[in-house]
Amino acid sequence: MAGYFDGIPEIRYEGPESGNEFAFRHYDADAVVMGKTLRDHLRFSVAWWHSFAWPGGDPFGGQTFERPWFGDDMDHARLKADEAFEMFRILGAPYFCWHDADIRPEGATLAESLSRLDEIIDHIGGRMEQTGVKCLWGTANLFSNRRFMAGAATNPDPEVFLWSAATVKGCLDATHRLNGENYVLWGGREGYETLLNTDLKREREQAGRFLSMVVDYKHRIGFGGTILIEPKPQEPTKHQYDYDVATVYGFLKDFGLENEVKLNIEQGHAILAGHSFEHELALAAALGVFGSIDMNKNDYQSGWDTDQFPTNVPEMMLAYYEVLKAGGFTTGGTNFDAKVRRQSLDPEDLILAHVGAMDCCAAGLKAAARMLEDGRLEAARAERYAGWDKAGDLLGSDLGALAERALSAGIDPQPRSGRQERLENLVNRYL
Amino acid sequence: MAGYFDGIPEIRYEGPESGNEFAFRHYDADAVVMGKTLRDHLRFSVAWWHSFAWPGGDPFGGQTFERPWFGDDMDHARLKADEAFEMFRILGAPYFCWHDADIRPEGATLAESLSRLDEIIDHIGGRMEQTGVKCLWGTANLFSNRRFMAGAATNPDPEVFLWSAATVKGCLDATHRLNGENYVLWGGREGYETLLNTDLKREREQAGRFLSMVVDYKHRIGFGGTILIEPKPQEPTKHQYDYDVATVYGFLKDFGLENEVKLNIEQGHAILAGHSFEHELALAAALGVFGSIDMNKNDYQSGWDTDQFPTNVPEMMLAYYEVLKAGGFTTGGTNFDAKVRRQSLDPEDLILAHVGAMDCCAAGLKAAARMLEDGRLEAARAERYAGWDKAGDLLGSDLGALAERALSAGIDPQPRSGRQERLENLVNRYL
Amino acid sequence: MAGYFDGIPEIRYEGPESGNEFAFRHYDADAVVMGKTLRDHLRFSVAWWHSFAWPGGDPFGGQTFERPWFGDDMDHARLKADEAFEMFRILGAPYFCWHDADIRPEGATLAESLSRLDEIIDHIGGRMEQTGVKCLWGTANLFSNRRFMAGAATNPDPEVFLWSAATVKGCLDATHRLNGENYVLWGGREGYETLLNTDLKREREQAGRFLSMVVDYKHRIGFGGTILIEPKPQEPTKHQYDYDVATVYGFLKDFGLENEVKLNIEQGHAILAGHSFEHELALAAALGVFGSIDMNKNDYQSGWDTDQFPTNVPEMMLAYYEVLKAGGFTTGGTNFDAKVRRQSLDPEDLILAHVGAMDCCAAGLKAAARMLEDGRLEAARAERYAGWDKAGDLLGSDLGALAERALSAGIDPQPRSGRQERLENLVNRYL
Amino acid sequence: MAGYFDGIPEIRYEGPESGNEFAFRHYDADAVVMGKTLRDHLRFSVAWWHSFAWPGGDPFGGQTFERPWFGDDMDHARLKADEAFEMFRILGAPYFCWHDADIRPEGATLAESLSRLDEIIDHIGGRMEQTGVKCLWGTANLFSNRRFMAGAATNPDPEVFLWSAATVKGCLDATHRLNGENYVLWGGREGYETLLNTDLKREREQAGRFLSMVVDYKHRIGFGGTILIEPKPQEPTKHQYDYDVATVYGFLKDFGLENEVKLNIEQGHAILAGHSFEHELALAAALGVFGSIDMNKNDYQSGWDTDQFPTNVPEMMLAYYEVLKAGGFTTGGTNFDAKVRRQSLDPEDLILAHVGAMDCCAAGLKAAARMLEDGRLEAARAERYAGWDKAGDLLGSDLGALAERALSAGIDPQPRSGRQERLENLVNRYL
Repeated sequence: MAGYFDGIPEIRYEGPESGNEFAFRHYDADAVVMGKTLRDHLRFSVAWWHSFAWPGGDPFGGQTFERPWFGDDMDHARLKADEAFEMFRILGAPYFCWHDADIRPEGATLAESLSRLDEIIDHIGGRMEQTGVKCLWGTANLFSNRRFMAGAATNPDPEVFLWSAATVKGCLDATHRLNGENYVLWGGREGYETLLNTDLKREREQAGRFLSMVVDYKHRIGFGGTILIEPKPQEPTKHQYDYDVATVYGFLKDFGLENEVKLNIEQGHAILAGHSFEHELALAAALGVFGSIDMNKNDYQSGWDTDQFPTNVPEMMLAYYEVLKAGGFTTGGTNFDAKVRRQSLDPEDLILAHVGAMDCCAAGLKAAARMLEDGRLEAARAERYAGWDKAGDLLGSDLGALAERALSAGIDPQPRSGRQERLENLVNRYL
Repeated sequence: MAGYFDGIPEIRYEGPESGNEFAFRHYDADAVVMGKTLRDHLRFSVAWWHSFAWPGGDPFGGQTFERPWFGDDMDHARLKADEAFEMFRILGAPYFCWHDADIRPEGATLAESLSRLDEIIDHIGGRMEQTGVKCLWGTANLFSNRRFMAGAATNPDPEVFLWSAATVKGCLDATHRLNGENYVLWGGREGYETLLNTDLKREREQAGRFLSMVVDYKHRIGFGGTILIEPKPQEPTKHQYDYDVATVYGFLKDFGLENEVKLNIEQGHAILAGHSFEHELALAAALGVFGSIDMNKNDYQSGWDTDQFPTNVPEMMLAYYEVLKAGGFTTGGTNFDAKVRRQSLDPEDLILAHVGAMDCCAAGLKAAARMLEDGRLEAARAERYAGWDKAGDLLGSDLGALAERALSAGIDPQPRSGRQERLENLVNRYL
Repeated sequence: MAGYFDGIPEIRYEGPESGNEFAFRHYDADAVVMGKTLRDHLRFSVAWWHSFAWPGGDPFGGQTFERPWFGDDMDHARLKADEAFEMFRILGAPYFCWHDADIRPEGATLAESLSRLDEIIDHIGGRMEQTGVKCLWGTANLFSNRRFMAGAATNPDPEVFLWSAATVKGCLDATHRLNGENYVLWGGREGYETLLNTDLKREREQAGRFLSMVVDYKHRIGFGGTILIEPKPQEPTKHQYDYDVATVYGFLKDFGLENEVKLNIEQGHAILAGHSFEHELALAAALGVFGSIDMNKNDYQSGWDTDQFPTNVPEMMLAYYEVLKAGGFTTGGTNFDAKVRRQSLDPEDLILAHVGAMDCCAAGLKAAARMLEDGRLEAARAERYAGWDKAGDLLGSDLGALAERALSAGIDPQPRSGRQERLENLVNRYL
Repeated sequence: MAGYFDGIPEIRYEGPESGNEFAFRHYDADAVVMGKTLRDHLRFSVAWWHSFAWPGGDPFGGQTFERPWFGDDMDHARLKADEAFEMFRILGAPYFCWHDADIRPEGATLAESLSRLDEIIDHIGGRMEQTGVKCLWGTANLFSNRRFMAGAATNPDPEVFLWSAATVKGCLDATHRLNGENYVLWGGREGYETLLNTDLKREREQAGRFLSMVVDYKHRIGFGGTILIEPKPQEPTKHQYDYDVATVYGFLKDFGLENEVKLNIEQGHAILAGHSFEHELALAAALGVFGSIDMNKNDYQSGWDTDQFPTNVPEMMLAYYEVLKAGGFTTGGTNFDAKVRRQSLDPEDLILAHVGAMDCCAAGLKAAARMLEDGRLEAARAERYAGWDKAGDLLGSDLGALAERALSAGIDPQPRSGRQERLENLVNRYL
């Protein structure tokens, strides 16, 4: 242990009036809301990549962070893991998520990379046993190395497809060993830079075949977790095939996977795709593919993924409202795919960014629960569609008959207020 | 006839060197390219709404145009039709498109609106016979009247659903009578202003049922044209259900309509959804749902639908390249859902906007045909994926086996140049 | 009186726990914060145009609202005024704002338009005396009528410049008569649709001359209020000359008006220009041109001006923090340039939209005051720049000397954490 | 020499019909247009950073390029320079541009960095003499190293200000030694990540003082070139102080530098700021601050700086039209701040990207010259404002008198067509 977080106390719940920066004001893990503890509702997860592996670079500047665990060998990988578990302890975070590239240095060969993964999984598994912290999901980084520059499953080179298959198999095996509750695929390079050199149809089919194989393999090895796809519209590519919830749904339907695969929805990706986060959540729930969330906001004025820690409670409330309406998480959780700004150099920054975000989420979820339990919003919604409850039989399949009925009845439907502002006021009552 | 276009000559092809503003420089309707005349490739259509019905307003200002046919009675409707056909003659436009609201004044009742539609369809049918101009598609305006403010098929009020059914039946009947080659549905209000008052799942199902009924009815009456959905992400609503090609595809799959319904893709809507036009065309072709296009560009700096006439030939080339690769139009065509700017007050503006746009499209299509016939772009694309032709058997369904193979073969795939700039240079050769 | 608001009670402060929709939960007008009542801090103003004149249309649909005062004669204008004052009374709104076009029907001639303005100003003045409600600002609508389609002060036709001069003189006179505290110019058409037909330099100079004349005239008539320019980047035009705060500042400097004219900053316009609202406020304060605000949010997913009532308290807090840091409003205030959604048809919608917005602003301002009084944020900011307090003499004007000093001192500056997330957590403590 | 470009022939002009990928089809350097050779009009410059220093990374992936000159010592720096001059020779590029960080490895101290700069400048100066290639501009990289993470001139730490002063002095001296024709400042980190920790007013003043010192120093050493500021709205920061042309103009006015400093305008930055490139150029010309251009396009669907080589001739035409109208370049030129996509790995990609871009610019400039010489566009513009030529005296300074005149004359100005589409058609004639 390098003692990176030495001097930072374990974060405890002290209530809204606490003046202590190193305390939760809203996240009381054991408090019960709608029959479940906040811990079980929120299922917080720390993302290994941004919090432990990211050096602080951006397209115009290099590394800013100096972490004792930065280094390209297994000793540093173990140190990184140990400090990560120290942070989980300080935060009381029940889960973590990882890419292979976050937890082990790349090997000289595929075989070496996989055996290093095995080795570090042993180490991490040991820490999990000691601490009780669990793995929310694992995933493979199929986008950083230059071999993936033109895609992984959708690469024009079949050898890269092969490589990707071996890597995903390794990561899925590792996730299974760690009792991970989900396995995620984010297709950061499954897209294109220019349509001019791209066979869209072929690449889409490769993506479908790959996903089908992953699902088959999951069943074969008895992995009980959920396979999740994480949509994103673009960046790094100009276009990413898993654009948004609706796009992925069509893709799943096409390959008959809509009952096998669910979605990991990220706030920032929703915004980049031109949607609100709550829209993507509500749509996924409506389509039966809601799985998990990455809770990191985007700057509304920036056209790239800023991956900031959430801070706006009213926005969180709307998001968790959709989560609660969908029945809450099953295998999913609240992963912070968020990174401190590259100027936030200190260990305290890393800890307190998580503390603030966990508090923001907890406050949002509690407000959402109040709103759902109170029932007024749902009552207003139901009342708006009440006409349909009586008129269900209208929905025959005969356009001609409906037209006749409209004419013979001499209907002249009058618009009714949508009451948007009243509902917005109502929502603000629960904050 | 009000003689609105008096003094404007019939537009003829005079070749690239012509100095005549009232001549085509690129659109030689009878010229043969890839075995078809330009007329048959491009299938130009004039949009009744923007060119004859739009008064020139915007959110901050009212009517600017003064057309002799503006007025709210059947006499004006007939005059409008007559002047429209005069414009079709001047332009040599083989097709037109319409909403019911463009061609007849709204009646006091549903019945009166429908009988007025019947009446004007008679009149228009007569002009079609005289001139040989044809109907590319018809559609119902289910968005302007306040009764549709909360949706048509997806309205919370079942009576509006009924009204919409009767209206679409009327418009589909009318399109059938005019031998229209397609029938379009654009769900301008099928979406929401706020998720707070919206039952997303229910509305989506209503939309599916409605579309299914339209398809059934089409078959019942023997309408041989294509049912087309026109995607748009938003505006006027905050979110429109038919967001983009991928979204509509998922929707069609869900309701088993992917072989019944195709897409009418608009350049401006593609851009609002965060895509390039050629992307939406290529994707629709890949998914087997490409139908027709609305060729009107968006201002890249404006976040709303500007519906401008196309002027950028390189962009048109890329669009028609996808059209030609997809086999060209069958029932579809090139509709100008474009409007002159509200400051373009004169009859000449209306004519010359179409002339320039037709020329721009013709130049684009000819360049696209050269590129496709030349074959170098497709050869480069095929070469990029050549590894897959040999390696097709890789695509087994066993992730474990693939992983073993990757390891035993000791692969180390090396990236190859994507050659984007070279291909971009190549594309510029055909202009 | 048409009794449009009959049955709606006067809105009173009942505190956060009130379950009454028709009560303020945060806006206690008489409560004192930082030495001033909330009434005097916030200086709420109702916008005549959106709340009384807007019919509910959008680019794809017509009128949805049915107000008894809609009509094109002076009787309706007076009725509109009377109902407006009834709404001011219900809300306890101390101010209102208007365009000429909102309060009187356009006349057949310029002279008639001006005399009608005179007439309605008499009427409104009477109501003001009776009620004590005041005029925050007046302005001229130089954008809706087709004569302004190519600009007002920047129109290529000098007669439109003349017309605009006469109109602004009339509106400034009227504002003066009403003891208005500011006069606003929003150049909705002072911009262009296409650069191709635009003489940018000439138009910019016309705008400068016009503004100079307005300032001169203000002094001549002894109008003691502030002349305000309201920036907006685009819409309805493709480009508007008063793009944002920084642009207007450069313009004012160019014409020597930076001490004569201040800015009316709108949240929605800030967002359309790619800024946060608090950025525009902070910049205006730094440049000495902060004047007043239009408090209406934009939908972050929509690329046009949605003019929604504010609902997000954390955002309001950041905005009012900048207002308070700048010393608060002098002649300015909080105008709601916001409109209920076009589906919000009922009188209650109009009232409650304002109630919710006033509460949201009050909650935001109170949180901002707490944050400012607490001083921790400002202390952190000051600490970050503390090095400069000691090193002020560094700022000599000799680059060479500085370079020598850097070399001789052998400096090696080490970065310090920017602490963004800690400050974001801190901010959330005041909510 | 590593022979990186071995086998690639010198690029010569072969005319539009040439089928040779390694030839110019439009850029005939010696061809005379409007009295000047294309070489002298276009003044092409290659950017050292993207073409020689960029490793091909993006936010989600690392290095893809393998250049023999990559390495962190002076030998590699010299090799890089030699290969760069080899590329200039192949392309016939008359100019290049550089940051200090592109041409020399960072030293362990400031002094070492500066002495390494001196050393490599000697080497580069030698190659310039041998080849006749010239330096368009130099600049300092004050954004990549972590010491600049919070700004250079605007850093909260005065030592970073000192460091920046020494660095800019060194780079300006070096540019002077190379007879550079301009010196550029791009404030990539002169902005903020969060307003919460930022003293906007203080930072803006520091920026002004710094720029004033640079201008003073330039005069002191007798540097005859132009000081240029390059605006950009954001990225890497959330907000950059030099947002766009209008913003920088206001800043220059504030510090009395509007006659000392001009602007280097980049297409991609214009687009990120919500403008068209031609707008920024026209505005800079109107304000008297037009200097030079960075000719690299942005992807319209991506919200970050994609820095692609220009390929759209119609867009280039509009840009060069503004350049020609402004009198053409004096000390400025056409710099390619463009990079090949990270998948474009081969030496040919680097060469051919420049070839295509130079051809695109040449075609655009020639079309622009035809349009300007033909004069029809300018005649139409002049005609639109002709009323002002007669009515100049209207522009008195007395609003009251103008109002009286408007009333007594009984004006009723009628709108005239803006003819946008006709002008767009006209523009297309020159392509």
